[in-house]
Amino acid sequence: MDNLGVLFLSELVGTAMLVLLGCGVVANVALAKNKGLGGGFLMVNIGWGLAVFAGVIVSYASGAHINPAVTLGLVANGATEFGNAALGTTVAVSAVSVLAYIGAQLIGAILGAAIVWLAYKQHFDEEPEPANKLGVFSTGPAIRSYGWNLVTEIIGTFVLVFVVIGFGRNGDGGGLAALGALPVALLVIGIGASLGGPTGYAINPARDLGPRIAHFLLPIKGKGSSDWSYSWVPIVGPIIGGMLAGWAALALLPVLT
Amino acid sequence: MDNLGVLFLSELVGTAMLVLLGCGVVANVALAKNKGLGGGFLMVNIGWGLAVFAGVIVSYASGAHINPAVTLGLVANGATEFGNAALGTTVAVSAVSVLAYIGAQLIGAILGAAIVWLAYKQHFDEEPEPANKLGVFSTGPAIRSYGWNLVTEIIGTFVLVFVVIGFGRNGDGGGLAALGALPVALLVIGIGASLGGPTGYAINPARDLGPRIAHFLLPIKGKGSSDWSYSWVPIVGPIIGGMLAGWAALALLPVLT
Amino acid sequence: MDNLGVLFLSELVGTAMLVLLGCGVVANVALAKNKGLGGGFLMVNIGWGLAVFAGVIVSYASGAHINPAVTLGLVANGATEFGNAALGTTVAVSAVSVLAYIGAQLIGAILGAAIVWLAYKQHFDEEPEPANKLGVFSTGPAIRSYGWNLVTEIIGTFVLVFVVIGFGRNGDGGGLAALGALPVALLVIGIGASLGGPTGYAINPARDLGPRIAHFLLPIKGKGSSDWSYSWVPIVGPIIGGMLAGWAALALLPVLT
Amino acid sequence: MDNLGVLFLSELVGTAMLVLLGCGVVANVALAKNKGLGGGFLMVNIGWGLAVFAGVIVSYASGAHINPAVTLGLVANGATEFGNAALGTTVAVSAVSVLAYIGAQLIGAILGAAIVWLAYKQHFDEEPEPANKLGVFSTGPAIRSYGWNLVTEIIGTFVLVFVVIGFGRNGDGGGLAALGALPVALLVIGIGASLGGPTGYAINPARDLGPRIAHFLLPIKGKGSSDWSYSWVPIVGPIIGGMLAGWAALALLPVLT
Repeated sequence: MDNLGVLFLSELVGTAMLVLLGCGVVANVALAKNKGLGGGFLMVNIGWGLAVFAGVIVSYASGAHINPAVTLGLVANGATEFGNAALGTTVAVSAVSVLAYIGAQLIGAILGAAIVWLAYKQHFDEEPEPANKLGVFSTGPAIRSYGWNLVTEIIGTFVLVFVVIGFGRNGDGGGLAALGALPVALLVIGIGASLGGPTGYAINPARDLGPRIAHFLLPIKGKGSSDWSYSWVPIVGPIIGGMLAGWAALALLPVLT
Repeated sequence: MDNLGVLFLSELVGTAMLVLLGCGVVANVALAKNKGLGGGFLMVNIGWGLAVFAGVIVSYASGAHINPAVTLGLVANGATEFGNAALGTTVAVSAVSVLAYIGAQLIGAILGAAIVWLAYKQHFDEEPEPANKLGVFSTGPAIRSYGWNLVTEIIGTFVLVFVVIGFGRNGDGGGLAALGALPVALLVIGIGASLGGPTGYAINPARDLGPRIAHFLLPIKGKGSSDWSYSWVPIVGPIIGGMLAGWAALALLPVLT
Repeated sequence: MDNLGVLFLSELVGTAMLVLLGCGVVANVALAKNKGLGGGFLMVNIGWGLAVFAGVIVSYASGAHINPAVTLGLVANGATEFGNAALGTTVAVSAVSVLAYIGAQLIGAILGAAIVWLAYKQHFDEEPEPANKLGVFSTGPAIRSYGWNLVTEIIGTFVLVFVVIGFGRNGDGGGLAALGALPVALLVIGIGASLGGPTGYAINPARDLGPRIAHFLLPIKGKGSSDWSYSWVPIVGPIIGGMLAGWAALALLPVLT
Repeated sequence: MDNLGVLFLSELVGTAMLVLLGCGVVANVALAKNKGLGGGFLMVNIGWGLAVFAGVIVSYASGAHINPAVTLGLVANGATEFGNAALGTTVAVSAVSVLAYIGAQLIGAILGAAIVWLAYKQHFDEEPEPANKLGVFSTGPAIRSYGWNLVTEIIGTFVLVFVVIGFGRNGDGGGLAALGALPVALLVIGIGASLGGPTGYAINPARDLGPRIAHFLLPIKGKGSSDWSYSWVPIVGPIIGGMLAGWAALALLPVLT
C-alpha cells in the first residue's frame, strides 16, 4: 500500500475507535436499562477523553488527527507534511491529502457509530425516547440558537487545536507534553467539562456528521428525526475554530529553534 | 525455579491482584452498609482500571497478560515469545506455555475473589440480595440475550486487545505508550464507561470464570445461584474478540522497522 | 518582540486559557439548562485542574506561572530569572518583570472570563439567580468571616506553591515531576477537593480579581453585585500563602547540588 | 543538619502534607455548609490519592515513606538504607532510623490534622454531629467487629506495600513505574475505591493515630469521643499487612539482577 493508503486507513481506524468509545459512553449513560444509566456529565466527559486516548493510540501512523478541525488547523498553522516520520509514512500536504484525511475520518466515524448500535442494540430497542437515541450519535444544543451555538463550538474547538499545537511546542522531548495520547485525552476531558454545557461539544465535524449519517441510514427502532437543521453548526463551528487556532498559534506560541 | 514457573507465579499473582481490587470495588458499591455504597458506575470503572494498574505492576515478569484474551490475542498476532526480555524470563509460545498462562490466570482469579470475600465478609453477611452477592464475583447482562451479549463482549475485548497491541507499536521508547501499567488502566476505564453498559464488561474469561468458581465453592451466607447458564458468554466472547483483534492488528497497525 | 514582551504575551495567553476553562466548568455546573448542571464539586475540581493543565501548556515560554502567588512565591524562594531557558526567553527578576507578569496575568484573566460569558451567553441570560452568575466569575465564602476565610486561602495557596517548588526539586530529570503541566493539574484537583470547601479556593489573585472585574464591566443580564467587600480576601490570602511557601521551601526542601 | 535530621524533617513535612490534604477532603465532604458537602466516596478516594501525591513530592529527601507500614514493610523486605541516594541523604537501617521515621510521621500527622482544623474551623463549629467531626480525623468501621476490621486493614495495607515494592522492581528507568508520586497516588485511589468500604482504609498507622491524637488534644467545639477502643485496629492491621507484603515480595516479585 502506498503512504496515502496507509494514512487513510490509519485515520479511518482511529476515528472509528474514537466514535465507538465516545458515542458508547453516551449510550451507556442515556439508554434504558444500562448499568451506567444516569452516570452523569463528568462520566461522559471522561468517556470521550479516553475515547480520544484509544483513537490516538491506534492512528499513530497518520499522526492521529482523527478530526477535520485538527487537520485544517494544522494546515492553517503552516504544516507541510502529514503522517509519522519515524514510520516513514509521510505525505505532502495538498488538496488530495487533506481530502483523504477528512474522508477517512468521516467514513471511520460512520463505522464507529454503527458498531455502537450493535454493542447497545437491545438498549436502543428498549429506549422509548427518540431524542435519547439521536443523542447517542450526534450533538444537539441545550438552548437552540444557531448563532450562539456556533460561538460555543468555535471557542471549544479553538481551545482544542490551540493547545494541541502547544503540546508540540513544549520542548521536553521525552516528557508528557510530547507523548501524544494522554495529554490530548486530558485536554478533551477538560474541554467537555468546561465548555460542553451549551452544545454537547462536537468540536469535531466528523464526530458529529458521521454518526448523524449512521443514525439516518441504520434501521434503528423508533429512531425519529436526525435533526439535519442543526447539523451544519457542529461542522462550520469546529472548522472556523480550528483554523483560527492554527493562525493564532503562529503569533502566540513561540517555536523552539 | 525455571522460567515457566516464574511466569506461572507472575500471572497468578497479577490476576489475583486484578480480581481482588476489581471485584473489591463492586463489593464496596453494591453490598449493604459499605462506605462506598451507591458510588456509581464511574467509580466501578475507575476501580477496575486501577485494579488493572496494580495487577500489571506486580506481573511485569510475565509481561502482564493477566487475561486469557490477551494471551490468545497475542498468539493470533504472531507472538513467538512470552515473558520479560529484560529480566531474561522468556519462554517460547507453545501449547504448554499458553496453558500455563491461562491456568495461572484462572487460579489467580479464584484466589483474588476469595480474598475479596474475606475483606468484605461482614458486608456479604448483611447483604440481603443474592444477586448483589453474585454481582461482586461475576458479570451478568442488563438484558439477557446470549447472542447480543456475546456481540457486546466481542466488541469490548476487541478494543482492549487491539489498543494494547497499539501501545506496543507507538514508537516512542521512553513515552507513556510504552510504560505498561497506566495506559492499560486508562483504556480499561474507558472500555468500562463506554462499552460496559449491557453486560458489565467481563472482557476477560479468567476475571469472570475464576470468581464464579469462587462464588460456587465458598460458604457465602445466602448466596443463591452462580448463574452457570450465562457463564459461557464472558468466556467465548472475549476469546473471539481478543483473537479477532490480534489478526486485525496485523493488517491495520503498521510496525516500525 | 523583546523577551519581556514574549513573556508578557505568554502569561496573558496562559492565564486567559486557565480562566476560560476554569470559570467555564463552574458555568456548566451552575447555570440554568446546561448539560452539566448539578455535576458536583468533584467535576468542578477536575475542570479547574485541567484548566491549569491547558494554561500551563500554552504559557511554556514564560515558565507558566499564570498566578501572581506563584510569581511572588518564586521571588520569595530566591529566583533570579523568569522565563524558559531552553527557548532563550529569560529575563532577570526585577520590579519591572514581576509587575509585567502580574499585569499580564490580570489582563489574561479578564479576557478569559469575558470569553466564558460568550460561550455561555444564553445560559447567563436564562439563569434567574444573580449569585450563580457571580459564582461563575469569582469565589465567595461558604460561611462569611474574613479572618477565617483568609486562613483557608493562605493554607491552600501555601500548599500550591510549596508543592510546585517541590516538583522542581525532585531530581528525576525525565520524570513526571519535571514535566510541568500534569503534576500541577493533579495538585490543583487535590487542593480543590481537599481545601476548597470553605472559600471555593481562589489560591490565585488574578483568577479571582480578573473575572470579578469582567463581571463588573460586562453587560450581563440581571447580574447583581460584584461583592467587592470580599474581593481583598482572595488577593491578600494567596499572596501571603505563596510567599510563606517560598520562604518555607528554602528551609524544608533540600536542593540537589 | 546531619542526614538523620534531614530525613526526620522530610518525613514530618511529607506526612503533614498527606494528612492535611487527606483529612481535608473528608472535612469538605462531611462537614456542614461546605461547598463539597455530599461529594461522595469517589471524591474522598481521589482526594486521599492526590494527598499521597503531594506528600510524596515534598518528602523526596527521605524516600517518601510517610507511612510506618511502608517503613516496616521495607525493613521486612530487606532494605539496608533509607533516604535519597541522589541527594546523598541516606542513613543505615537501624532501630534508631526506623524510630526516627515513625516518630516524624506521627508528629507530621498530628500537625497536618491540626491545620485541617484551622482550614475548616467554622465548619467544625457549625457541624452538629460529633461523629462527623471525628470522621475527619480518624477512620472507623462501617460494621464494628475488631477481628474482621483487622482483616480488611491487613489486606488493604498488604496491597499498598506489595505494589509499592513492585514499582521499584519494574525495570524501566525513565518510565512511570519509577516516577514515585503518581503511581502511588493512583494505587491509593484504587485501594480506597476497592478495599475502603468496610473500615475507611487507614492502611497507615500514622495517618490514623496522629489525627486521633489531634482530635483528642484540640479544643474542637462539641467534639465527642475520640473512640480509643478502635484505635489499635488501624495501627496493628497496617503493620501486619505491610510486613507480610515485604516478606511476600521477597518470594513473589523476582528481582532484576
